[in-house]
Amino acid sequence: MQVCFGVDIGGTTVKIGLFSEQGDILDKWEIPTVTENGGNRILSDVAESVMDAVKRHDLEKDRICGIGVGVPAAVDKNGFVSKTTNLGWIDKSVKKELEERTGFTVRVGNDANMAALGEMWKGGGQGSDNLVMVTLGTGVGGGIIVDGHILFGANGASGEIGHVCVDNEETETCGCGKKGCIEQYASATGIVRLARRYLDGKSVETMLDPQNLTAKDVWDAVKAGDSAAMQIAEIFGQYLGRALADVAAVTDPEVFVIGGGVSKAGDVLIEYVEKYFRRYAFYSNRNTRFSLARLGNDAGICGAAKMICEE
Amino acid sequence: MQVCFGVDIGGTTVKIGLFSEQGDILDKWEIPTVTENGGNRILSDVAESVMDAVKRHDLEKDRICGIGVGVPAAVDKNGFVSKTTNLGWIDKSVKKELEERTGFTVRVGNDANMAALGEMWKGGGQGSDNLVMVTLGTGVGGGIIVDGHILFGANGASGEIGHVCVDNEETETCGCGKKGCIEQYASATGIVRLARRYLDGKSVETMLDPQNLTAKDVWDAVKAGDSAAMQIAEIFGQYLGRALADVAAVTDPEVFVIGGGVSKAGDVLIEYVEKYFRRYAFYSNRNTRFSLARLGNDAGICGAAKMICEE
Repeated sequence: MQVCFGVDIGGTTVKIGLFSEQGDILDKWEIPTVTENGGNRILSDVAESVMDAVKRHDLEKDRICGIGVGVPAAVDKNGFVSKTTNLGWIDKSVKKELEERTGFTVRVGNDANMAALGEMWKGGGQGSDNLVMVTLGTGVGGGIIVDGHILFGANGASGEIGHVCVDNEETETCGCGKKGCIEQYASATGIVRLARRYLDGKSVETMLDPQNLTAKDVWDAVKAGDSAAMQIAEIFGQYLGRALADVAAVTDPEVFVIGGGVSKAGDVLIEYVEKYFRRYAFYSNRNTRFSLARLGNDAGICGAAKMICEE
Repeated sequence: MQVCFGVDIGGTTVKIGLFSEQGDILDKWEIPTVTENGGNRILSDVAESVMDAVKRHDLEKDRICGIGVGVPAAVDKNGFVSKTTNLGWIDKSVKKELEERTGFTVRVGNDANMAALGEMWKGGGQGSDNLVMVTLGTGVGGGIIVDGHILFGANGASGEIGHVCVDNEETETCGCGKKGCIEQYASATGIVRLARRYLDGKSVETMLDPQNLTAKDVWDAVKAGDSAAMQIAEIFGQYLGRALADVAAVTDPEVFVIGGGVSKAGDVLIEYVEKYFRRYAFYSNRNTRFSLARLGNDAGICGAAKMICEE
C-alpha cells in the first residue's frame, strides 16, 4: 500500500496526517508553528516530524508518494512563496527546501485550495470534480476545483472570492483596502457588523445583545426564531447569494461547498444563501448545488495528501 | 504537414478555415447558416463544405487532425448542445453527427471560448496561457483559459462574465432577466444606454445626439475630446473595471484580452477600463495586463482549430 503525508501549516499549529492513497487517515498529529526569526524553523520542524513518523510507522521509502503541503499564502507552481502575513516567510522556496530536508517529492498549495481539494475527495464535495469551496471564518476564503484540479491562477491567487465586491455604496474599508468586499458581510466579524448595523437605533425585541455579540449568537437566535436575527440572516443571504451568483457566472461550478467556523450554523445558513443565490444566479447556474463542508480541520491535510497522490 | 479545420457557426454565416498545426490559415471561406427547420441542414452543409475543401486541396485523410467547431451555445464535454437561441437546435449531438458525416474527429466548444483560445494562440493573448477574453459586442461575453485549456464549467456555461452584477440599484432588466449585469453598461447597447442616462435632462455642450447614437459615436467623441463623452467613458470604465476586478479575484488571469465590436475603439477604451480595474482589484491582481484582441472575425475559427490540434 502506497501512503503519503498531508501537511497544513497554520499560524499557530502545523497539522500533519499520514494517508493511504485511498484517502484514509492512518495517523494525524500537530506540532507548534514557530514563527520567530522569519519562520526559519518551520520547515525543519515539519521535516523532522515527518521523518519521525516514517520511523514510527516503519515505512519503507518506496511506499511513500511524497508530501503535500498547504500554506496560508499565495504559492506559485514551483512551490515558491513570496510573502506570508503570519508565518514570517519572505521569498521561501517551500518545495525545494522540504525536498532537500526529507528526500521525498513535495507539492505546495494555498491552504484554501487544499481544503477545497480535501472536501472534493472525502467531504461535502464528494462525487463532483467541479466545485467552489467557500470558507466563512475570520475572513472569507475560497478554492476552485476544475476537472478535479486546483485552479491556481497566474499569481497563485485564484479563488479570492472574499474580495468580490457586492456593495458599491459601502463606506467602511475591508482588510484588503477595498470597500464592499463580501468578506465585510459574510465572515464571522462581518455578520456581527451586519447585526450591529441592523439593530443600531432600532427598538426591536430580540435576544441579541449588540454590545456582546458573535456570529454564533446570531445563528443561534435565528434557530430560536428571533425575528431580528432572521432579518439579519436575510441580509447575509442576500449579500452572499449575490456574490456566489457572480462566482458561478464566471466558473460555473457543479456545487458550492460551504465551510469554515461560521458554517457550523449548519443547514439553516445554506437555506438563506441558496434562496438568494437562486434569485440572482444566471439561468445556466440556477441548479448549482450547495453542501456543507464535512471535514472540519482535517480538510487541509486531506487535500494536501490528495494533491501529492495525483503527482 | 498536419492540418485541421476550424469552424465557427454563427446565426447568419458559418466561417470555416483550413489551418496548419502551427496555426497558419491556409484557406478560409464562409457559407450561409440555414436556420430553418430547427437548423437541421447546418451540420450537413458544414460537412459538405469541409469535404469539398478536402478535395479542393487534395488532402490525404491521415494528414487531417480533425474539425474544431465553435457554436453560439453552452456545449457539454461530449459536444452536445441542449438549446441554442439562434440556430434552432434542440438537443443536438454536434460532435457525433459531424463525425458520422465526415469520418474525422470533431471537438465542439462555445464560440466565446473558441475566440479566447484563438486570441491566446495567435492574437492579443499570445505568450500567456492564463487569460480571460472579454467580448464587448451586442452583449458581453467571455472565455476563460486556464493553463492553456478552456474552463468549460459544469454546465458548459463558464465565462458568462456579462452577467456579473455590478449595480444592485439598477431598475431596468437585462436580457437574462437579472438586474445590474455588466452587459447592461458595457455592451454596444449598454454604452448607448449609459450615454442617454448621462445626457438626459442635462444641458451640456456635446457632439453627441441622444436621439441618434451608437457606441462608436461615444468613443469617437471621446477621441475628439468631447467632455460629456469623456464622462460617459469614465462611468463605463468604472462599471467594467469593477466587474473585471471581481473576475480577477475569482480566476486570477495573467491578461485580459478585450475584443468584440466595441473594442474597435482601441487603446483609449483599455485606458478607461484599466484605470478603474487598478482601483478596484484585489492587491494580488493589480498587475494583471490588458490587451486588445487582434484576430477580429478569425478568432473563432482559429480557436476551434487550436482545440482540435490539441486532441
